[in-house]
Amino acid sequence: MALRDGNSYRESLRALNIKVYAFGEKIDSIVDHPLFQPHINAAALTFDLAHDPTTEALVTATSHLTGSKISRFTHIHQSTDDLIKKVKMLRLIAGKTGSCYQRCVGWDALNANYTVTYEMDQELGTDYHQRFRRYLEYIQDNDLMVAGAMTDPKGDRGLPPAKQKDPDMFVHVVAKNDKGIVIRGAKVHQTGIVNSHEMLIMPTMAMGEEDGDYAVACALPTDSPGVIHIFGRQTNDTRRLEKGDLDQGNAEYGTVGGEALTILEDVFVPWERVFMCGEYKYAGLLVERFASYHRQNYGGCKAGVSDVIIGATTAMAEYNGAAKASHVRDKIVEMVHLTETLYCGSIACSCEGAPTPSGAYFVNPLLANTVKQNVTRFIYEIARLSHDISGGCMATMPSEKDLHHDEIGKYVEKYFRGVDEAPTEERMRMARLVENMTGGTALVESMHGAGSPQAQRVMILRQANLGHKVKLAKKLAGIKEEK
Amino acid sequence: MALRDGNSYRESLRALNIKVYAFGEKIDSIVDHPLFQPHINAAALTFDLAHDPTTEALVTATSHLTGSKISRFTHIHQSTDDLIKKVKMLRLIAGKTGSCYQRCVGWDALNANYTVTYEMDQELGTDYHQRFRRYLEYIQDNDLMVAGAMTDPKGDRGLPPAKQKDPDMFVHVVAKNDKGIVIRGAKVHQTGIVNSHEMLIMPTMAMGEEDGDYAVACALPTDSPGVIHIFGRQTNDTRRLEKGDLDQGNAEYGTVGGEALTILEDVFVPWERVFMCGEYKYAGLLVERFASYHRQNYGGCKAGVSDVIIGATTAMAEYNGAAKASHVRDKIVEMVHLTETLYCGSIACSCEGAPTPSGAYFVNPLLANTVKQNVTRFIYEIARLSHDISGGCMATMPSEKDLHHDEIGKYVEKYFRGVDEAPTEERMRMARLVENMTGGTALVESMHGAGSPQAQRVMILRQANLGHKVKLAKKLAGIKEEK
Amino acid sequence: MALRDGNSYRESLRALNIKVYAFGEKIDSIVDHPLFQPHINAAALTFDLAHDPTTEALVTATSHLTGSKISRFTHIHQSTDDLIKKVKMLRLIAGKTGSCYQRCVGWDALNANYTVTYEMDQELGTDYHQRFRRYLEYIQDNDLMVAGAMTDPKGDRGLPPAKQKDPDMFVHVVAKNDKGIVIRGAKVHQTGIVNSHEMLIMPTMAMGEEDGDYAVACALPTDSPGVIHIFGRQTNDTRRLEKGDLDQGNAEYGTVGGEALTILEDVFVPWERVFMCGEYKYAGLLVERFASYHRQNYGGCKAGVSDVIIGATTAMAEYNGAAKASHVRDKIVEMVHLTETLYCGSIACSCEGAPTPSGAYFVNPLLANTVKQNVTRFIYEIARLSHDISGGCMATMPSEKDLHHDEIGKYVEKYFRGVDEAPTEERMRMARLVENMTGGTALVESMHGAGSPQAQRVMILRQANLGHKVKLAKKLAGIKEEK
Amino acid sequence: MALRDGNSYRESLRALNIKVYAFGEKIDSIVDHPLFQPHINAAALTFDLAHDPTTEALVTATSHLTGSKISRFTHIHQSTDDLIKKVKMLRLIAGKTGSCYQRCVGWDALNANYTVTYEMDQELGTDYHQRFRRYLEYIQDNDLMVAGAMTDPKGDRGLPPAKQKDPDMFVHVVAKNDKGIVIRGAKVHQTGIVNSHEMLIMPTMAMGEEDGDYAVACALPTDSPGVIHIFGRQTNDTRRLEKGDLDQGNAEYGTVGGEALTILEDVFVPWERVFMCGEYKYAGLLVERFASYHRQNYGGCKAGVSDVIIGATTAMAEYNGAAKASHVRDKIVEMVHLTETLYCGSIACSCEGAPTPSGAYFVNPLLANTVKQNVTRFIYEIARLSHDISGGCMATMPSEKDLHHDEIGKYVEKYFRGVDEAPTEERMRMARLVENMTGGTALVESMHGAGSPQAQRVMILRQANLGHKVKLAKKLAGIKEEK
Repeated sequence: MALRDGNSYRESLRALNIKVYAFGEKIDSIVDHPLFQPHINAAALTFDLAHDPTTEALVTATSHLTGSKISRFTHIHQSTDDLIKKVKMLRLIAGKTGSCYQRCVGWDALNANYTVTYEMDQELGTDYHQRFRRYLEYIQDNDLMVAGAMTDPKGDRGLPPAKQKDPDMFVHVVAKNDKGIVIRGAKVHQTGIVNSHEMLIMPTMAMGEEDGDYAVACALPTDSPGVIHIFGRQTNDTRRLEKGDLDQGNAEYGTVGGEALTILEDVFVPWERVFMCGEYKYAGLLVERFASYHRQNYGGCKAGVSDVIIGATTAMAEYNGAAKASHVRDKIVEMVHLTETLYCGSIACSCEGAPTPSGAYFVNPLLANTVKQNVTRFIYEIARLSHDISGGCMATMPSEKDLHHDEIGKYVEKYFRGVDEAPTEERMRMARLVENMTGGTALVESMHGAGSPQAQRVMILRQANLGHKVKLAKKLAGIKEEK
Repeated sequence: MALRDGNSYRESLRALNIKVYAFGEKIDSIVDHPLFQPHINAAALTFDLAHDPTTEALVTATSHLTGSKISRFTHIHQSTDDLIKKVKMLRLIAGKTGSCYQRCVGWDALNANYTVTYEMDQELGTDYHQRFRRYLEYIQDNDLMVAGAMTDPKGDRGLPPAKQKDPDMFVHVVAKNDKGIVIRGAKVHQTGIVNSHEMLIMPTMAMGEEDGDYAVACALPTDSPGVIHIFGRQTNDTRRLEKGDLDQGNAEYGTVGGEALTILEDVFVPWERVFMCGEYKYAGLLVERFASYHRQNYGGCKAGVSDVIIGATTAMAEYNGAAKASHVRDKIVEMVHLTETLYCGSIACSCEGAPTPSGAYFVNPLLANTVKQNVTRFIYEIARLSHDISGGCMATMPSEKDLHHDEIGKYVEKYFRGVDEAPTEERMRMARLVENMTGGTALVESMHGAGSPQAQRVMILRQANLGHKVKLAKKLAGIKEEK
Repeated sequence: MALRDGNSYRESLRALNIKVYAFGEKIDSIVDHPLFQPHINAAALTFDLAHDPTTEALVTATSHLTGSKISRFTHIHQSTDDLIKKVKMLRLIAGKTGSCYQRCVGWDALNANYTVTYEMDQELGTDYHQRFRRYLEYIQDNDLMVAGAMTDPKGDRGLPPAKQKDPDMFVHVVAKNDKGIVIRGAKVHQTGIVNSHEMLIMPTMAMGEEDGDYAVACALPTDSPGVIHIFGRQTNDTRRLEKGDLDQGNAEYGTVGGEALTILEDVFVPWERVFMCGEYKYAGLLVERFASYHRQNYGGCKAGVSDVIIGATTAMAEYNGAAKASHVRDKIVEMVHLTETLYCGSIACSCEGAPTPSGAYFVNPLLANTVKQNVTRFIYEIARLSHDISGGCMATMPSEKDLHHDEIGKYVEKYFRGVDEAPTEERMRMARLVENMTGGTALVESMHGAGSPQAQRVMILRQANLGHKVKLAKKLAGIKEEK
Repeated sequence: MALRDGNSYRESLRALNIKVYAFGEKIDSIVDHPLFQPHINAAALTFDLAHDPTTEALVTATSHLTGSKISRFTHIHQSTDDLIKKVKMLRLIAGKTGSCYQRCVGWDALNANYTVTYEMDQELGTDYHQRFRRYLEYIQDNDLMVAGAMTDPKGDRGLPPAKQKDPDMFVHVVAKNDKGIVIRGAKVHQTGIVNSHEMLIMPTMAMGEEDGDYAVACALPTDSPGVIHIFGRQTNDTRRLEKGDLDQGNAEYGTVGGEALTILEDVFVPWERVFMCGEYKYAGLLVERFASYHRQNYGGCKAGVSDVIIGATTAMAEYNGAAKASHVRDKIVEMVHLTETLYCGSIACSCEGAPTPSGAYFVNPLLANTVKQNVTRFIYEIARLSHDISGGCMATMPSEKDLHHDEIGKYVEKYFRGVDEAPTEERMRMARLVENMTGGTALVESMHGAGSPQAQRVMILRQANLGHKVKLAKKLAGIKEEK
C-alpha cells in the first residue's frame, strides 16, 4: 500500500479494537479523546512528513526487502549513512513536535530482532530470521506503527525472573502448541503503545538457563485478545481536559510519548510471529542491540527537543527585556553547547557503526551508551538553565481562564507583560511551553527512557577495553610486560 | 492574646474578607476550597507546633519588645543564637511538611524593616522605626501571619521603574494626604498571601532619584479595599480537586507555598503603617537586608525538604529491591552530602551574623548569598538523583482510580509491586511523593525564590573583597605594592 | 617557657638529631638546606604570629590544664567558640602563606587522643588519659610542634593489617616490657614531620580482634633512635635549588607541607608515652575523631589558600587587560562562591560541635566530612577557573634566567608584558604563583589530605540517619508505619 | 624524496642552524640536549609510524597535488573520511606517546591557509593560492615538520593591535620591497617550533582596517636570520636533567609539546612565501578555519592521552589492591565516559564536515568548538578522578635515588609496595606517570591549547542559529509569527 499520511493513520487506529483504560475508565475511542490527542498528533506527524517534500528524503527509505519506498521508521539500516540519517530525522521531527513521537521504539526493536534472529539461526539452525523478514515485510508494506515492548515490571530488582515470588513479573511462555505460544505477564512504560498497531515483545535483560521460559520475543497486534492497556499519568495531564489550550504549553504535541502498562493475560501468538522462545543465551544480546540502537536516538530527538527549549528560553529572555545581559547569553551558549554535545554522541556512534552478520548496520555500542548517559545529566541542566533565564512566572502564573476573565483579565494582561512590544499572551504561552518541556515527566523520560544510567555504565565498562589501556600505560611507564 | 493554634488560625482567615480568584472564579472561602488546603495546612502547622512540647522551644521566642512569649515567626533576632535557631526550626518544620509553609517571607520582611527603619531614622531624623515597632507589637500580640511583598512585575527588565512604559510595573505612591498614602501596582509571586492576615510591602530593588515614588514600604491587611489576589497555577494543582489523595503525592501539605499575583488598585495606607516613602537611597539597603535574611533560610527549609526526598528515595530503593546496590547507596550519599552542604551554608551565615545599629542581628550576607546560590543548583541535582534511583514509574504509573478499579485494579496491584513484602499502594504513594517533590514548581521555587541566581552573584562580587585578596597574592609573589 | 617565635623554633630544630634523607642523600641540617626552607618558614610563621598583636588573639589560647597562655596549636578545644576560632585562624594564616603550615595535624592528633583516652579509661579502667594529660602539658609548656602520624603504608588495600603478607605494612608492637614497647613499621605522607619535634602515632583504621598488635597510639621525638625520614618529591621541588626565586612562585612558603616516609625500625617508646596498646575496639573511634577534626580544617586553610588564588587570578586578569570582561568577572565570582561554600562547611561543623565525655569539644562529624568532600572537588574547579583566566603563559613562560639574561632578557621583558602599566616581572611572578598553587602536588593534597573521598562518603552514610528520613517520607506519603 | 623516518628527521634538525635559548643559555644542539629529548622523540615517532605497517594506512595519505604518498600530517583533507582519519590517527598516536607530538598545529595551518587563500583569490583576484600550493608541494615532497604560528603576545587584551602602546605586540609588516616583506614581533606558546623545519605565520584574530599591517600570513624556516626561540618552562622539566628516568613519569615522550617564545626581529620573507599581506578582512576567516580544524583535534589526541591515564589509573588501582571496589570501578567508568564523549565530538564534527570552495574539507565549526569546550572541563575531571583512585603517593613519594639507595632503598622498596605480586618500582613508575600526565602543564594545555574557553563560546553563539530555534518554539507555543 502507499505510505500512510496522518489521517490514514488516525483512521487505522479507529479500526482497531484496542482496550485502553485511563483514570479508571475504559476509553471508547482514543482517537477522539482529548487525553490522547497530543500523542496521536505527534505520531501522525511522522506519517505526514513522509509526504512533505522538504522532509521526505529523510523520512522515507527504500526497503532492502522489496525495493519499495517505505517509511524510514520501518527500515533496516543498510549503512552508516542510514544510521546518521536516523539521527538527523529524529532531531528534525523533535524540533517540530517538542515532544516524543514514539515511533523509534518499535523501529529499534525491528532492527534489533532482525540482527539477532539472523545470528541465532546461524548458530542454532533455527529459522527465526525468515519468519522475522516476513513479519517485517508486512509492517513495511502496511506502514504500521510498532511499539517496542521490552520493559517488564521486574518486581524485586534484586532477583532474576525465575526467582521472583510472582512468576509473572516478567513476561513468560505459559503454554505452547503446534499453532503457537501463550504468554503471560505485562510490559510497563510502553511508549505510544495505545496508538500503535503492533507490539514487538522482547526480554528485558540477560537471562540464565533457569529463566528459559522468560526468553521470549514475538509480535502481536495491540488489540489482541487478552491485551489490556492502562494509561499512565503525566505531569499536568488533565490540563488537556480543560477549556483553552494555553495552559498545556504544547497543546498540539504534549510532553512525552504517553506510556501505558500493558497486560498480557494469557495471550496467544502464532509461531510465525515468534522470534525467540527459550534461547535464553540470546536474551542479553537482543537487549544489548535494542538498547544501543535506542540510546543512539537520544542525542537526536533530545537535541531537537532542546532546540525548542533553547528557542523558548531565548524568547523568554527577549520578552523579559534581558536578552542582552551577558549572563543570559552565556547560559544560552551553555544550553547550545550541551545540546550539541548530545548530538555529537549520536552522530559519532552512527558514523562508527558497523555491519552485523545479517548485513544490517549496528551503532558503536560504547559511544551509543555514552550519549544516553550524557542525556541523563544534560537535559536536567538544560532545564535548570531554562528556569534560570525564563524566570519564576512559569511557577506562579494564573490560568488561561484568568487571563481571559471579564473582570480580572485586564490585570493579568497588564502585570504579566514583559517588554512593551510583545503581547502578554505570547509571554504566557512561551512560559507555559517552557514549563511543559522542563517539568516532571519530561525529565524522568530523559533519565529512564532507553534504560537507567547504571545500565549504560555497565555497558560502558564492558566495552572499555581497560586491558589495552593498561598496556599503553605500562609501556610509557617503562614497565616490561610479562609475556 | 495567647499564641494561636492551627484552628484559631483557620478561623481567623474565615473572618477576613479577602478577594481571591483562581481558575477564573472568585473563591468564596479559601479555607473550605480544596485547592488551598495544602497551603493552609502547612501554615497552620506552624501555629500548632508552638503548642507542641517537642518543638515549642524552637518555634516560640520571647519578644524583646514586650517580654511575652511569641511565635518565633514574628521575632526580631537578638543574637546569632536566634539566627541559628531560625535555621534549625525551618529544617525541622520542612521535614514535617515536605513543602513550603510560607511564614518566613513576612518574618524576614519584619526583620529587614526593623533594621532599616532604625538606620533611616538615625541618619534622616525620620520616625519610621517607632511606627514600625508599634506595628510589630501588633503583629506579635495578635500572632498574625504576614506576607512579605517585594517582587514587582518589573515589565522590561532592562529599564528602571521610572522608565517603564506602564508606570505601574512597580508599586508606587499615586497620592498622599495627611492621613496616609495611596499606592498602585502589583506584587507577583506572593507566597502564602491568600492565607495571610497582613502584607508588608517593600521596594524590589535599589533605586535612583527619579524613582522616588517607587521607594515605598508599608503594611496593610490582605483584605484591604482595592486589593485583589489572583492565584497562580502549580504543577498538577488540579489533582487536589480529584477524588482520592494518592495522586497528589503530598495531599496534606502540597508542594510549594501557593503564589498569587496581588493587585493594588489605588489602595490607601495610613501613615502609621508607612515605613518608607520616597527615601530612595534606602531601597537598596532594604532589599539587601531582606534578600540576605531570606536567602539564609534556604539551607534550612530546603534541607528539610531534601531530608524527605532522601527518605522517599531510600524507601523507593527498598521497594524496588535495589537498596543494597553500591551505585544506589552512593547516590543516596551524594544526596545527603549536597543537603548537608546547603545546611552548612545557613548555619555558617547565622553563626557569622552580627548586630545592626538597631540591635537586631543580621546574617553574614556573603555566606547567605552563597547558600542560596548552591540551592539553585543542588536541589536540581538532588531531584535528578532521586529520579535515577526511584525509577521511571513516577512518570508512567496509572491513577489512583485505576489502582482501585473493580476490573483492572488487580493488574495495577500486581504489576506495580516491587519487593513482595511491601504493598503496591505504598510503593505508588511513595513514587507520587517523589514526583510531587521533584517536579516543575518545586524546582522553579528553588531557582527563583529569594531572588534569581544572578542576584546572588552580584552580591557575592560586592562582598568578595577582591582588593584584599590581590594584596595577599602580591605579597607572596614577591611583588612590592606601591604605597 | 615563653611562647616560641620563629627563630627559637628554628634553633630548636637545629638541636635535634633528626635523620632525614632526600634525593638519595642524608641531610646535615634541614634548617640550612634550601629544599626545606619554605616548609620551615611556614611553620615558623605560626610561631611568630603568636607574638603579632594583630593575630595573637586567634593564635594563642589559655591552657585548660595550667591556665598559661599557650599556642592555640597545642590547645584542647573547650567550646564551640574554640572550634570556630580554629577555622578562622587556619584561614588567616593560609592567606599569609598560600601554603600548608603543617601544624594542624599534630593538633588534631592531640585533641583526638585527649578525648579517646578519656573514654577508654572510663570504660576499661585504664589510665591512658592521665598519661596523655602529662604529655600534653609537656607539649604546651615547651611549645613543641607535633606531627600527627596516622597513615600506614597499607600494602594491599583489600586486606586488614593482620592479613598482609608483610606484617610491617601497618605499625605494630613487636615487643613489650615493663619500661615500654617496641614498635615497627612506617608512616607515609607525614606532613611537616622533618621539621617537627614530636610525632604522635595513631592507628590508621578500625580494627578487629586479630589486629590487636596494630592498635597502638604513642608519642616519640622525631629524632628517636630507629627513626628515619625519607623526604618526598613535590612538583617543581628542585626549583628551590636554582638561582633566583621567581620560578618557584611562592619562594617563601612553597606549595604544600613537605611530606616524608617515616621509618620506625624497632623503636622503643616508654609506657608514659603510650596511649593505646591493644585496645583494638578504640582504633576506629580514634580514627574517626582525628579524621573529623582534621576534615574540619579544610574549609579554613583551603579557603585561605583559595583567597590567594583568587587574588592572584584577579591580578592576572588585570595584567592581561581582561579584568572587566563579563565572563572573567563571572568566573571570579564562581571562585569566591566555591571558596565561601568550603568555609561555610568548616564554620558550621564547628558551630554544631558538642562536648565529648572528656569535656573537650568535638566537631559535628557529618558536617566535617561534608566539607572535606567538597574540598576534593572545589579546589580542582578553582584551579581550573584560575587557569582559564590567568592564561596559558604559566605553562610556556621562560625561566627567570631568561628574563634577566643580557642578550635575550629584553625580549622576554617586551613580549611577556600585559597592560603597559605593569612591569613584566610582576606579571611573570604572579603567573608563577598561580602555577605553584594550582599544579600537581597542591591538587593531590586537597584530594587525599585528611583522607580520600571515599573515606568521607563512608562516614557521611554512617551519620546520615536514613531511617529517620524514611519515616518523614512515609508520614507525608500517607503510609502507616507498622509499630 | 621518500617519507622520512625518525632518524632522518633527527638528522635534518641537526642540519638547521636554529637559535634556541633555554634556562638562560644558548643551546648548541637541541637534538643532543636532554631537555628536548621527549619532544623530539614524540615528533620522531610520527615519522616512524609512516613506515610501520600497522599504522601506515592512517599515518600516510596520497597527495592531491602530486599523487605521491605523503605524510598525512602534510595532507589537505579531501573528504569527511580524511577528517575522520585525522581524528583516529591522533588518538592512536597519543595512546603511544601519552603526550603531545606537535605536528597537528602546522597541519591545521596548512589546511586553513589552503582554503582561505583560495577564497581570497576568488574574491580579490590575488594569486596567493597558487603560491601556497607550490609551498605545500615543497613541504609534502620534503616531508617537513611545520609549526603553526598564530598566537601573538597580545599585550593589553582589551586593545586591538593598532592601539597597543608597543606596536610589536602583534606580528606586523615593517617593510616591503619587490623581493618580499620584513616582519617584526613575536609568537608565543609555539608548540614544537624548536624542533620544526618551518613555521607558518598567521594573524591571531579578526582585524579592522586600521590593523592592516598586522594582517600577515607567511612561511619561513625556523632558522631564518632574525629568528630567536626562547624555550618555556614546564612542570618538573629539570627532572630530565637528573640521573635516572623514573621520576620523569614518561621519560620517552614527556608531557606536552615543548613551547617557545619565538622572536621575529625584522625577518625577511620573500613574496613567494607570503599568503596574506594587508587583506585584513580575511584575518578573521583564517583564524576561524585554523581554530576549528585545531579544536577538532582535541577529542582525538586528548582521548588518546586519556586512554593512557585511564590505563595508568586502572593499574594503580590494581597495585593498591583496590581494583574491585565498586567506587573505584565507577570512577573508571566515568573516566571512560568522559573520554568517549570527547571522542564523539571530534568524530561528529568530522563526519559533519563539508567542502570549502577550494575543494578541501572543513569540519563542522559548531561541533568542533563544542568538543574543545568539553576538553577544557573534562580533562581536569579525568585528572581529578585519577588522583582520587591513584592515591596520595604521587605527591609524597621519594625520588628514584632514594629507591636505589644503598642504605635506605630497602625501606622505600618495602613500604611503597602495594599488593605483594607487583614490584614496588612498577607501582612507583606508574604513580610518576600519573603525576606527569595530570599535573600543571598538561592541564593548562587542555585549557588554552587551540584557544581559551571563551573563544569557543563566542563561536558557539555565532553558529547557534538562535533565530531558527525561536521559530520552532513560537510555533509550538501557538504564537503566530508576524510575516
